[in-house]
Amino acid sequence: MPLFDKPLPELHEYRPERSEPADFDLFWRDTLAKAETDPLEPAFVRYDAGLSTVEVWDVRFTGFGGHRIAGWFLAPREVAGPLPTVVQYLGYQGGRNWPIDWLVYPAAGYAVLVMDTRGQGTDTADPDPGANPQVPGFLTRGLVDRDSYYYRRVFTDAVRAVDAARTHPIADPARIVVAGGSQGGGIAQAVAGLRTDVAAALIDVPFLTHFRRAAEMVDKTGYGEIADYLARRRVPPEDVFGVLDYFDGVNLAARATAPARYSVALMDAVCPPSTVFAAYNHYRGPAEIDVWPYNGHEGGAQVQRMRQLRWLGETL
Amino acid sequence: MPLFDKPLPELHEYRPERSEPADFDLFWRDTLAKAETDPLEPAFVRYDAGLSTVEVWDVRFTGFGGHRIAGWFLAPREVAGPLPTVVQYLGYQGGRNWPIDWLVYPAAGYAVLVMDTRGQGTDTADPDPGANPQVPGFLTRGLVDRDSYYYRRVFTDAVRAVDAARTHPIADPARIVVAGGSQGGGIAQAVAGLRTDVAAALIDVPFLTHFRRAAEMVDKTGYGEIADYLARRRVPPEDVFGVLDYFDGVNLAARATAPARYSVALMDAVCPPSTVFAAYNHYRGPAEIDVWPYNGHEGGAQVQRMRQLRWLGETL
Amino acid sequence: MPLFDKPLPELHEYRPERSEPADFDLFWRDTLAKAETDPLEPAFVRYDAGLSTVEVWDVRFTGFGGHRIAGWFLAPREVAGPLPTVVQYLGYQGGRNWPIDWLVYPAAGYAVLVMDTRGQGTDTADPDPGANPQVPGFLTRGLVDRDSYYYRRVFTDAVRAVDAARTHPIADPARIVVAGGSQGGGIAQAVAGLRTDVAAALIDVPFLTHFRRAAEMVDKTGYGEIADYLARRRVPPEDVFGVLDYFDGVNLAARATAPARYSVALMDAVCPPSTVFAAYNHYRGPAEIDVWPYNGHEGGAQVQRMRQLRWLGETL
Amino acid sequence: MPLFDKPLPELHEYRPERSEPADFDLFWRDTLAKAETDPLEPAFVRYDAGLSTVEVWDVRFTGFGGHRIAGWFLAPREVAGPLPTVVQYLGYQGGRNWPIDWLVYPAAGYAVLVMDTRGQGTDTADPDPGANPQVPGFLTRGLVDRDSYYYRRVFTDAVRAVDAARTHPIADPARIVVAGGSQGGGIAQAVAGLRTDVAAALIDVPFLTHFRRAAEMVDKTGYGEIADYLARRRVPPEDVFGVLDYFDGVNLAARATAPARYSVALMDAVCPPSTVFAAYNHYRGPAEIDVWPYNGHEGGAQVQRMRQLRWLGETL
Amino acid sequence: MPLFDKPLPELHEYRPERSEPADFDLFWRDTLAKAETDPLEPAFVRYDAGLSTVEVWDVRFTGFGGHRIAGWFLAPREVAGPLPTVVQYLGYQGGRNWPIDWLVYPAAGYAVLVMDTRGQGTDTADPDPGANPQVPGFLTRGLVDRDSYYYRRVFTDAVRAVDAARTHPIADPARIVVAGGSQGGGIAQAVAGLRTDVAAALIDVPFLTHFRRAAEMVDKTGYGEIADYLARRRVPPEDVFGVLDYFDGVNLAARATAPARYSVALMDAVCPPSTVFAAYNHYRGPAEIDVWPYNGHEGGAQVQRMRQLRWLGETL
Amino acid sequence: MPLFDKPLPELHEYRPERSEPADFDLFWRDTLAKAETDPLEPAFVRYDAGLSTVEVWDVRFTGFGGHRIAGWFLAPREVAGPLPTVVQYLGYQGGRNWPIDWLVYPAAGYAVLVMDTRGQGTDTADPDPGANPQVPGFLTRGLVDRDSYYYRRVFTDAVRAVDAARTHPIADPARIVVAGGSQGGGIAQAVAGLRTDVAAALIDVPFLTHFRRAAEMVDKTGYGEIADYLARRRVPPEDVFGVLDYFDGVNLAARATAPARYSVALMDAVCPPSTVFAAYNHYRGPAEIDVWPYNGHEGGAQVQRMRQLRWLGETL
Repeated sequence: MPLFDKPLPELHEYRPERSEPADFDLFWRDTLAKAETDPLEPAFVRYDAGLSTVEVWDVRFTGFGGHRIAGWFLAPREVAGPLPTVVQYLGYQGGRNWPIDWLVYPAAGYAVLVMDTRGQGTDTADPDPGANPQVPGFLTRGLVDRDSYYYRRVFTDAVRAVDAARTHPIADPARIVVAGGSQGGGIAQAVAGLRTDVAAALIDVPFLTHFRRAAEMVDKTGYGEIADYLARRRVPPEDVFGVLDYFDGVNLAARATAPARYSVALMDAVCPPSTVFAAYNHYRGPAEIDVWPYNGHEGGAQVQRMRQLRWLGETL
Repeated sequence: MPLFDKPLPELHEYRPERSEPADFDLFWRDTLAKAETDPLEPAFVRYDAGLSTVEVWDVRFTGFGGHRIAGWFLAPREVAGPLPTVVQYLGYQGGRNWPIDWLVYPAAGYAVLVMDTRGQGTDTADPDPGANPQVPGFLTRGLVDRDSYYYRRVFTDAVRAVDAARTHPIADPARIVVAGGSQGGGIAQAVAGLRTDVAAALIDVPFLTHFRRAAEMVDKTGYGEIADYLARRRVPPEDVFGVLDYFDGVNLAARATAPARYSVALMDAVCPPSTVFAAYNHYRGPAEIDVWPYNGHEGGAQVQRMRQLRWLGETL
Repeated sequence: MPLFDKPLPELHEYRPERSEPADFDLFWRDTLAKAETDPLEPAFVRYDAGLSTVEVWDVRFTGFGGHRIAGWFLAPREVAGPLPTVVQYLGYQGGRNWPIDWLVYPAAGYAVLVMDTRGQGTDTADPDPGANPQVPGFLTRGLVDRDSYYYRRVFTDAVRAVDAARTHPIADPARIVVAGGSQGGGIAQAVAGLRTDVAAALIDVPFLTHFRRAAEMVDKTGYGEIADYLARRRVPPEDVFGVLDYFDGVNLAARATAPARYSVALMDAVCPPSTVFAAYNHYRGPAEIDVWPYNGHEGGAQVQRMRQLRWLGETL
Repeated sequence: MPLFDKPLPELHEYRPERSEPADFDLFWRDTLAKAETDPLEPAFVRYDAGLSTVEVWDVRFTGFGGHRIAGWFLAPREVAGPLPTVVQYLGYQGGRNWPIDWLVYPAAGYAVLVMDTRGQGTDTADPDPGANPQVPGFLTRGLVDRDSYYYRRVFTDAVRAVDAARTHPIADPARIVVAGGSQGGGIAQAVAGLRTDVAAALIDVPFLTHFRRAAEMVDKTGYGEIADYLARRRVPPEDVFGVLDYFDGVNLAARATAPARYSVALMDAVCPPSTVFAAYNHYRGPAEIDVWPYNGHEGGAQVQRMRQLRWLGETL
Repeated sequence: MPLFDKPLPELHEYRPERSEPADFDLFWRDTLAKAETDPLEPAFVRYDAGLSTVEVWDVRFTGFGGHRIAGWFLAPREVAGPLPTVVQYLGYQGGRNWPIDWLVYPAAGYAVLVMDTRGQGTDTADPDPGANPQVPGFLTRGLVDRDSYYYRRVFTDAVRAVDAARTHPIADPARIVVAGGSQGGGIAQAVAGLRTDVAAALIDVPFLTHFRRAAEMVDKTGYGEIADYLARRRVPPEDVFGVLDYFDGVNLAARATAPARYSVALMDAVCPPSTVFAAYNHYRGPAEIDVWPYNGHEGGAQVQRMRQLRWLGETL
Repeated sequence: MPLFDKPLPELHEYRPERSEPADFDLFWRDTLAKAETDPLEPAFVRYDAGLSTVEVWDVRFTGFGGHRIAGWFLAPREVAGPLPTVVQYLGYQGGRNWPIDWLVYPAAGYAVLVMDTRGQGTDTADPDPGANPQVPGFLTRGLVDRDSYYYRRVFTDAVRAVDAARTHPIADPARIVVAGGSQGGGIAQAVAGLRTDVAAALIDVPFLTHFRRAAEMVDKTGYGEIADYLARRRVPPEDVFGVLDYFDGVNLAARATAPARYSVALMDAVCPPSTVFAAYNHYRGPAEIDVWPYNGHEGGAQVQRMRQLRWLGETL
């Protein structure tokens, strides 16, 4: 993909007006309050992954609607806590996979809780997705009102994953980091916007951000599902975008106060750079951004990972 | 797509051994018996589609699990019944759309009930698809055991759609025809196999048939979802195919007794001809097949439609 | 296809200067006058399409050059005329197909004459296309001068199709509607511009419109044939566009006076929205336009059809 | 394209039964006899191509139906004739282009007449292609009976091109070679089968050969047009193949007596190797074949050209 | 990719005759003997990768031709050696990347040396690739004789990487494992065939194996480069395959004695299953194979990794 | 490819500021001076290409680094010299091929020396490309500093090819023309900029020009290799572009004084028109440009060739 979005200097200034419902905060306060009425019941069961220097637990906790959410918890073995702990959210259509996929943070001296994404994940169902016929994928699941929308459930799970991480004895509750790339970046950004007690946020090439613009720019899996849904069902676009506004990363970033490290790739046709900058430029707390000028959606990959480790060392 | 499957003479002889669970009939007897405990409650509400020669009703009835299923019912206006009535099932990812999509049967003097497909349809949700994380699409939804599998719900809806059609005053209950192409053909074939009282079956390029072979031949949306699911989740293939056997068109065709008119296209890469012939050659009742040697999945299209009208005229 | 053309507000104002030959009207007056010297000889032969509520005729009439043009004529059975009658033109590479493809208007109480497109149609040859070696397709057939250009023949056929429709006893000559989508929309638009006696025009995502801009924006079958032809034959572009100007929908729309209902799709990469708005904004008579913001060339499809039925009811 | 056709040893033995109409020879005798009633009227007009060592003539002669066919004639300047002369036929969708495209034979001491292909060529129209609506391309043009089929006209043009070449004072009438690749190879093969007085034939990766098998193997432009036509028009395949039999290279090769040098490429997905071998193995005269095992439709290209020059030197 | 190669039962029996040069062993003995005349000079420099539980060294050692080869060496921190040590080879077009890419073995209690692949790697040049103009990629680099062929250099580097690993104080020289997937699998297989002192081999979906068959089956990057090279350069195929025989995994596997764990994917279009089984079935030492029936070239991925850890635990 | 770059009027004015290193001239003076220390040793060996009107020599001469570079030399037979002589450079991934590929200039009365491109050519190796692991292709070979960059070697070869041509007895040293298209156009442009004694330059759709813009516009083979390299290796972009500046056609054109004939194609997605105009508008000597508005990278092809012959006749 060649360069296709705004030039970098314009991106740095791109701070579009937010399309934010009046009762945005109320909606989320109610949603999270209701979720808290279900007991969290975190369960950490030791799991033999054949690893000698890392300890692994299979995790379950209660997310949205009383549904049980799966995850992994890994920590360096024989290290006395409390440890700073990363809550890791996942890319689109991915799942928690296997413990050996999540060794970077333990190797660097952190604990990590990896949250499976309901429906798309490895071991976590999405028990109530039936509100509407939808385009394949998850972006239009339940997209008939804000209450039934899929990401209401996911973001709530994600908020509670932080609570779950905190209950582990090795985790330092004052040093919880949220992290992820693509969909995972969008979720981390949402959690940073929905709670005030995370210590840092690592947000790479975030998805679920600036939906109105993204739906006009992307025609592939991901944002393209929105246009596909509108093309097929021919409902008034505002019926759709009016719901998405409650979940838009731009609005969530505008509420986030934790120090954040973003990354963006200028040739990213999946999460176009202007959508990322729209949120970054609205981010309320202190934030930095790494720009990858010739990369696509892979973004900074492992090099970004190394920068994040250094930055976390300085920030926490 | 060039010719890629067995040569036509071999197809005519292709009658693979059926992979049929011992309790196949029991499973379906129980499933349908349980569904009948929910009252059907068919509702036909007149709908103004701006048509002067065709009468239209918006339909609702109770399908699997007590869920309400949508549909259209059309009949020629000012024709005294009872009329032979076609129950029409739909292709993959399609829905009941609009009444003007379904004018052929009324123009030919039939009534038609078009059943929306849950989840993928226009107006019908699939309220309980959450049993497993799945590949986008519907073929692997609930594919963890026979009870939670998506097509258990769909086939049950389809069986009950026949009951619903019968309750309409204009329909002749002795002349109910099941019909469809692709997924709709697979559903019509299933209903023909699950009830003994349909008068005829029109089965075009049926999907959901001979899964074990299809999963090795097709890598696109549709059958390709099975291999995709196995590739990602790495469960033992038999865990998947052992469930699919309960829904395989080959096993269902072997029970169907209504006169059937099949069609197949030899360059059909979506529903390969050998999978269609596998069911056709096992079909228990009288059956004929139209072979389209140079067509793909579009099959005989409108020409097939005209042949079917003629054949229905002779058969009913 | 993501959004790729001008933003909607600019489209509503996009009224490019017309590139119109001085003798445009003379050319068409002469062309049509000459065509009228061939007797129309409309022939309507009853056709058994197996339909009980619709009457069908196989149609032939004389178009350009004395060539016989095929069509279907359908009307609701047992309805006393005179009926408003739609003359339906067809999309690129399509043909009149079969009567069961054209049931919407009869079901809504209209008669319809479907005109086969010469050369590309089902049953109508284009007996004199040999003036030049051409790119496959029809857009460059005869594109050496205005007299030999393919669409001179097609537009003349289309004008005479209106005459043919009028000769049918059931048709109300005062209520002839021209209609079509894509190429059919371009032809309907041309007929609306070439005769003053049509009662309404339904013009969906019209092709054959604003050639000069389209040839720079589209590289696929359709408009792309023009650039392909110029790329291969390397004639001066003005030799080609100077001919196309006589057939450009922008110039034809500027002469049309019948009430018109247009539609356009903002993600339509086949007939880009700016080419449609260029004609719409020049349309001389009263006109409205339906904008489909997230659709491609399929445009409004059946929903547009329903809107048109309502609008025709109000307009005729 | 990986290897996809029969293995080479089987290809060498592949001599399928010919599907040959009883009146094949009569059809061609009549066709050519009728063509001869039009005077050939060859015209050679000197053309300034800016070349100092090659002399160039713009050629016209009468082909099928009295139509004038264009060509180039090139000969080395200042060489006393008579010279052996190659009649060169062209690939699909190509044309005679420019004299500088045809310098190999003059550089090697031969004269060459390059025949434009009607309709697809640079300067030659196909004045009567209108017998049927067709698939874009030329393979189904006029494919309703043997008399109106496009290649009846082309092969007749090609036979007369040999006559035209002979009338040039520099050409040695006893040493006329027919040559071409792909469509040009199919035409050269046809001419070798239709006249007994050519001195040699160079037939590279010939098209228009073994249609029945080719139509099942190829889905791209070229042979793919046949299946596309059958898929759209749904006529009985025998109506189409029964016509094509009169033009099939297998039947024409079986009549050819001139020494021939074939070439074939085993990864050629446009003209599959089995279709080439089918003709080669039926070739009646002495013939050799160069096999390019890892090439696609480009075949032996310039290396084949050099081999041919050597072989012509030995053969003529 | 659907199933495209031989059926699994045939694959288990597929043991094609080896195309093995008479002086195969001599060639490799000489090649390796010559390489040993260059001092190995292994250098391990501590590298700060920000990891607290894993120790990292940047590695250099002398490979083929005296060239310095880069790598990483990782071991669990604060574990007393000697440790079993995996020498990891890399996939095509990949490189050693960053230490955080190689955490699985240290987490499982092994040391690992990751060898950069010359030319394609991250930090290792291929100083003498200039013997021939080649197709982009590496498969045809130097493919003019066995001495200049690229993989002669790579396999020699790989053999010496084992020596380098052994010099590290933490490595247990009696427990060196070679491992890799795709190209890395092909290299590991080669090293297993070229030295008798490795303790185990992990060979996933190996590349560089059964070239003669692969070149006919694959047309993409990788094996496709061979056909591409033959297609362009038109040398006698035996000139190419006669060289490749010295590097063919089938011949190398036939010499390997270490216990091996293979894996293969039946829908792998990059390294087709028959090419993998050809080597596996010729493997001289004890070997097992994991078959992934519905996967492509990704093979068993992390699940295979976990099986290998278990197997190594039992085998070493 | 539709129109995608700046509009033509802007292109005619597009003269971006040059990104030119201060020691640009020094770098090239040193490079060429050093090359001249290797004796040229041109060798012309008569080659039997089977041509009777053209004489052919196989050429070798010393290029960069003492490496021997291959070529062909062709001249009309039996013409007394001295003749104007074209030095022809080649497109990307091509080679000198065979003498029969290069007949246009001899037919027009010129001699021609065709220079093989090292590494990618037919018979010329690039003996020292090993400075860095690179992306497949040639654009990033040695792209670590200006001294090791691949095109330093190629441009030097090309400069010396002019010297080699001059040593042939038939060549007129005062009338040496440099010529080429795409990469060949970029090389011809470079030679025109690096020496003051060429008589004319034919530069078609030149590659290797305005790298900084091209790398943002093109994602395919060619310029796309730069972004691919930056994406994979993640070095600071300036490290790469700072080297490329020494080889940029814009800077070289600004030094060229020979009369030049450029061509450009406005739909050329391989060498976008703005990159060509950037150099053309900076060209120091007299220059004209042919604009092909509807062509892609094939540009003017043979028609351009004919124009060039005419122009050369007037210019030399």
